[in-house]
Amino acid sequence: MSPMSLLTETVAAITPASREAMTAAEERQSMLTKPPGSLGALENLGTRLSGMYGVCPPPMPEPVTIAVFAGDHGVHAQGVSPWPQEVTAQMVGNFLAGGAVINAFGRQVGAEVIVVDIGVAGDVGAAPGLQAHKIAAGTADMTKGPAMTPDQVEAAIEVGIGVARGCVAQGSRLLVTGDMGIANTTASAALISVFTGLGVAEVTGRGTGIDNPMLEHKVSVIQSAIRVNQPSPDEPLAALAGVGGLEHAGVVGYLLGAAALHTPVILDGVIACAAALVARAIAPAAADYWIAGHRSVEPGASAALTKLDLVPLVDLGMRLGEGSGAALAVPLVQAAARILREVATFDSAGVANKE
Amino acid sequence: MSPMSLLTETVAAITPASREAMTAAEERQSMLTKPPGSLGALENLGTRLSGMYGVCPPPMPEPVTIAVFAGDHGVHAQGVSPWPQEVTAQMVGNFLAGGAVINAFGRQVGAEVIVVDIGVAGDVGAAPGLQAHKIAAGTADMTKGPAMTPDQVEAAIEVGIGVARGCVAQGSRLLVTGDMGIANTTASAALISVFTGLGVAEVTGRGTGIDNPMLEHKVSVIQSAIRVNQPSPDEPLAALAGVGGLEHAGVVGYLLGAAALHTPVILDGVIACAAALVARAIAPAAADYWIAGHRSVEPGASAALTKLDLVPLVDLGMRLGEGSGAALAVPLVQAAARILREVATFDSAGVANKE
Repeated sequence: MSPMSLLTETVAAITPASREAMTAAEERQSMLTKPPGSLGALENLGTRLSGMYGVCPPPMPEPVTIAVFAGDHGVHAQGVSPWPQEVTAQMVGNFLAGGAVINAFGRQVGAEVIVVDIGVAGDVGAAPGLQAHKIAAGTADMTKGPAMTPDQVEAAIEVGIGVARGCVAQGSRLLVTGDMGIANTTASAALISVFTGLGVAEVTGRGTGIDNPMLEHKVSVIQSAIRVNQPSPDEPLAALAGVGGLEHAGVVGYLLGAAALHTPVILDGVIACAAALVARAIAPAAADYWIAGHRSVEPGASAALTKLDLVPLVDLGMRLGEGSGAALAVPLVQAAARILREVATFDSAGVANKE
Repeated sequence: MSPMSLLTETVAAITPASREAMTAAEERQSMLTKPPGSLGALENLGTRLSGMYGVCPPPMPEPVTIAVFAGDHGVHAQGVSPWPQEVTAQMVGNFLAGGAVINAFGRQVGAEVIVVDIGVAGDVGAAPGLQAHKIAAGTADMTKGPAMTPDQVEAAIEVGIGVARGCVAQGSRLLVTGDMGIANTTASAALISVFTGLGVAEVTGRGTGIDNPMLEHKVSVIQSAIRVNQPSPDEPLAALAGVGGLEHAGVVGYLLGAAALHTPVILDGVIACAAALVARAIAPAAADYWIAGHRSVEPGASAALTKLDLVPLVDLGMRLGEGSGAALAVPLVQAAARILREVATFDSAGVANKE
């Protein structure tokens, strides 16, 4: 590690959201032509956006970029998913062709979708919208030793930082996490167990849809990986290397890089939530810049959100990944900003206030 | 009433959603590049949209119109709201000037906002975007007798039918309910108590935000109105006349008119839910065309949704009215249609299916 690596520099640049802007936003909320509190969670979200951007009213959170980090997992060999590993590369092709759910949802919310090959096992070729930053052709099997080396983890985090920097440099004011990686709910559950202190069985779910015997097997595989690697929440980089994935590391960097640039990020499901726990352990103030997009069906996602003290915006029983749940939250985040930016005050509109 | 009034004609034209299109949509969902069921409530919603439009995949639910029905309430004189009655007319002015929350949310989701003066007590003047169809300058005090005459109810319902017809004639393929009327949560709670059979105290909420003594008073006012008018769920028009509002009657017509034209409508909060109970009692098949936009904080809204067997898309602790919660659901409804319209199949994308 250089004396001042990109990661170190990024972490050093992260400062908490602006209290001053949040106080101004709270005051403004009470002057707008609506009963106080009547917009529920969106009022708090608007106030938080003011804090993140450091100004009230906040700018419109647009343009929006959804970065889908794609990687494979050595632990797939343990039979934790009914889907063949090739699906990761095939779905990357689907993203690049515009045919996946995240593409449809990106079009719906006016967001650009970029795909980052940070660790796909197969060759994904070159295509517009693909950022080729393969650190390895998938992780190692975490039941046999660490999933990644320390150098791989740092390189993958720095890829994520670079992606966030690139998005913001190109004008994005709102980022969305996305992910693709067959077996990545396995690594996510391992990380969430480590960082929440909850038992593996409590935070492990059915991913893309597995039956009870495969779920029991998945839990025991994760328990083995934790026994082998002994990850600790006090050593987040080592824990990530032990039982994480390359796309988790990429998202960690993306979350840190965005926070350093005072740019909000909407977290998708269980992969993003696992990465957020790691990123917060590295830089606690970064969490000020994160918004929970949706409540995934995966139990680990809810456990992580509770630990992160975030309440999700959308709750539709989804469990797809790709960034799909977070993408649906984009209009809600923008609506929260519009309240502060566009709604008239009682005085300006000539509307009488409560008696 | 003419031998074939607009209301009678409209009710006669309502047919259930297409089973055939829904079956085709269910089959298509299983072929798309996503684990089956992974999009949760949006899969069922996409299937329902196919049924409403009678074709799979459904057309894009756009353009979108939000119709805000505004009216005043004689029961305001009983002290059920801390807001002066003039706020209804003042907020109509705010809507027409584009300064209200519903205008900001309409811009967010690309929906046109129209305002229907169906019964505002004061003069709201003329302005682009205003449809002037005042049936009366507010309802009568329902604690003293019926809020409306039978003729007023039918005229107000037919205004709503006309508004829906006008929207669809101008190209709208998705309608959203909106409302404005100081004291209209009082009439809503009365209707919901009648049509759900639940006690008044169970379905009465704090509206724009009232304290405990005013809430107790509101409950007793509603109980008086029910005692005086003896509304029955078996006589929906008489019940609406007894304890409803002009904007409720307008929304009833809007819901029936849209259903007759196979056009989905997103229900907003407690006012729309109360109107939906009335409309369903008039024409049960119309309910096939309604989508619950959000879960309002008002207890009556949840009670009505349960009775209507609808699960809301957004749940953010909102209680503003105007159509604000339903407006936020627009992108979710459109996303549900996009799944069926835009997502590639396993075959077409060359993605392997589950092993």
